[in-house]
Amino acid sequence: MSKGFFVTVEGGEGAGKTTVLDQIETELIQRGYEVVRTREPGGIRIAERIRTVILDVTHTEMDSRTEALLYAAARRQHLVEKVIPALKEGKIVLCDRFLDSSLAYQGYARGIGFDEVKAINEFAIEGYLPDLTLFFDVDPQIGLTRIQSDKDREVNRLDQEKLEFHERVRNGYQKVMDVYPERIKVIDANQDVRAVYKDAMTEINQFVGR
Amino acid sequence: MSKGFFVTVEGGEGAGKTTVLDQIETELIQRGYEVVRTREPGGIRIAERIRTVILDVTHTEMDSRTEALLYAAARRQHLVEKVIPALKEGKIVLCDRFLDSSLAYQGYARGIGFDEVKAINEFAIEGYLPDLTLFFDVDPQIGLTRIQSDKDREVNRLDQEKLEFHERVRNGYQKVMDVYPERIKVIDANQDVRAVYKDAMTEINQFVGR
Repeated sequence: MSKGFFVTVEGGEGAGKTTVLDQIETELIQRGYEVVRTREPGGIRIAERIRTVILDVTHTEMDSRTEALLYAAARRQHLVEKVIPALKEGKIVLCDRFLDSSLAYQGYARGIGFDEVKAINEFAIEGYLPDLTLFFDVDPQIGLTRIQSDKDREVNRLDQEKLEFHERVRNGYQKVMDVYPERIKVIDANQDVRAVYKDAMTEINQFVGR
Repeated sequence: MSKGFFVTVEGGEGAGKTTVLDQIETELIQRGYEVVRTREPGGIRIAERIRTVILDVTHTEMDSRTEALLYAAARRQHLVEKVIPALKEGKIVLCDRFLDSSLAYQGYARGIGFDEVKAINEFAIEGYLPDLTLFFDVDPQIGLTRIQSDKDREVNRLDQEKLEFHERVRNGYQKVMDVYPERIKVIDANQDVRAVYKDAMTEINQFVGR
């Protein structure tokens, strides 16, 4: 694995991405791999600054195209500062959300247009697609119920969207999978977390030796 | 003028845009027009937040594509919150920099690629091009000398770029004019400020009655 291995995890709210990523990270480190666990702002200070603008609950006047451009900007900076250097060092990069979130949320669910959001993201990523993407597919009602029962989780602007919006997000991910059928593997995230983790590791094991 | 009139002013550093825009604004108000004088963050709080990220002098690690996406995001928010509503009310909008700055600075001078920067900006502006753009064409050496002698002017990250960069910006504007020959009028900004103002008003008077 001299070129590294780039895995992204996608899915709606409450799909269990964080919990399962914790377990995947632990397993891969135990096997002796160097793992970079990240999410898109990723401790990159410019990207974190951009994220505070996106997620500010008072920014109700934010236009959906502004939001899509800000996500693409944060993605770009995180990619060039953190992801690409780690991959060049042969590390495994586990990233919570990437390109496909923008396609599903902004392109499809917010109605900007799939191809238009794809165009600005192609500008941002310059061909750096993940080697593997795990789509944690959860029924939106189940996902939202999980969020609402988790008292420790900080509620942000996106969580406040209506159930209908999260159903559109799920349909958006279906469209993303039509465009990238090889790269994206569906994980049934309605299952309990042990089963979700097991299914996720089965996919990762296709790429990463035990 | 039921649909308003959208004028943008472009040019390198030290071209005299601010001084001449002051005079144009005063003249048009004296003629009885409702004028909205703005620059791209334009007091729009989301766009101002984005601008602080772009112009932070400590952000030396900022990737040029991140910067281009942030400019497009700030442009989008300013356009939908301030420019389009004013135009719909039949006002004259005088805007200090717009699309063409990104094409000349990011697309050409920073070497990202003209067509790629045009694509993300087309996403941002959705066809809202200015009715008239005045390009204040100044020799970069003259422009930088003017900036350095102005003690009141806040020096930002862009001012610190080398002379060579500003020469590339000027070449970038030439390329912008090749793409939009009808919309953009060249004003010789090496002249003294009275002559620049006079030439600028001559162009505006083609659209706005005395």
